[in-house]
Amino acid sequence: MARSVSGPEIERLIQLLAKLPGLGPRSARRAALHLIDRKEELLVPLAKAMEVAVERIVVCSTCGNIDTSDPCMICTDPRRDAGTIIVVEEVADLWALERAGAISARYHVLGGVLSPLDGVGPADLRIDDLVQRVSAGGVTEVILAVNATVDGQTTAHYITDRLQGLGTKVSRLAHGVPVGGELDYLDEGTLAAAIVSRTPF
Amino acid sequence: MARSVSGPEIERLIQLLAKLPGLGPRSARRAALHLIDRKEELLVPLAKAMEVAVERIVVCSTCGNIDTSDPCMICTDPRRDAGTIIVVEEVADLWALERAGAISARYHVLGGVLSPLDGVGPADLRIDDLVQRVSAGGVTEVILAVNATVDGQTTAHYITDRLQGLGTKVSRLAHGVPVGGELDYLDEGTLAAAIVSRTPF
Repeated sequence: MARSVSGPEIERLIQLLAKLPGLGPRSARRAALHLIDRKEELLVPLAKAMEVAVERIVVCSTCGNIDTSDPCMICTDPRRDAGTIIVVEEVADLWALERAGAISARYHVLGGVLSPLDGVGPADLRIDDLVQRVSAGGVTEVILAVNATVDGQTTAHYITDRLQGLGTKVSRLAHGVPVGGELDYLDEGTLAAAIVSRTPF
Repeated sequence: MARSVSGPEIERLIQLLAKLPGLGPRSARRAALHLIDRKEELLVPLAKAMEVAVERIVVCSTCGNIDTSDPCMICTDPRRDAGTIIVVEEVADLWALERAGAISARYHVLGGVLSPLDGVGPADLRIDDLVQRVSAGGVTEVILAVNATVDGQTTAHYITDRLQGLGTKVSRLAHGVPVGGELDYLDEGTLAAAIVSRTPF
């Protein structure tokens, strides 16, 4: 703001809100006013929820998921198939797969992908931990659910190499037409993959 | 989420973040992960800033602005022209005018506009307070800086009626071509207003 029209506390709140993905300087101001307008219904509970998050949320030392317990709820859930590990890049991908609800397995969050350009090497990701989990035995299948990007696929190849000889099946997500997708709007690579992987009707 | 994959604390944080304007359920999840990933740099300071806001931010009993003191910084600033009151709908409008920096006056935040359809009458806005401020004397001009909407203009007319006979000049913002605006993209109403209010070159 050109001139200060309120105490530094409000401007600090706006500046911090503007660092959230999806909020810019203008929407952060709107969000701050919205919060202050709804003090009891929103600002107080949100401040409290953040305080709880600061105090209680930890990263699972087994799989890299975030939770309020270590090991996390997924790693300690006896109803899940402990023999299948789904490897994902980020916690957000784990959440997305859980929303799909297609499989009841364990996870392994890499914390990113190999990216020589950005200086991200194997030591920066949870790859050694994955090899260790698989080496410990009991894992029959590792599903590589990394993004279908160049870096994602490079990472998938690297992990496949590292897991070779451990006697575990390694698979990856199918490529194809998204459910509800219109062929006219799909890229040629996806269409070609869908043709190659066609299934009997 | 279809199944619970983490403690209720994270889901509560996501639900509350989703209530912010500009964030939906998906971006609230991204924001929550962003916050948890950046615990020390962002989550801890934001939780603290919100706590401070809860404790210290109040509504100015004179003008309706929000600040950490009552009366607010603007109402107590001796360098501002106390004889001019700019009437705005919301605090966000006050901030926008302050960023423009065109005038150094006092403000009066109505807290909305008259809207019979939404059941907002004069008693729901800070209109009586405004009449009282003007009646107390020392105010030479009231600038109505309400939005150029139907409800905004109705409110402006109502306030003008209420202020009649108090010996105070009442003005409103000029209509015209926005700075940087292209004529081809402007609506006819704005163009007509810009022609009528043309100024010597």
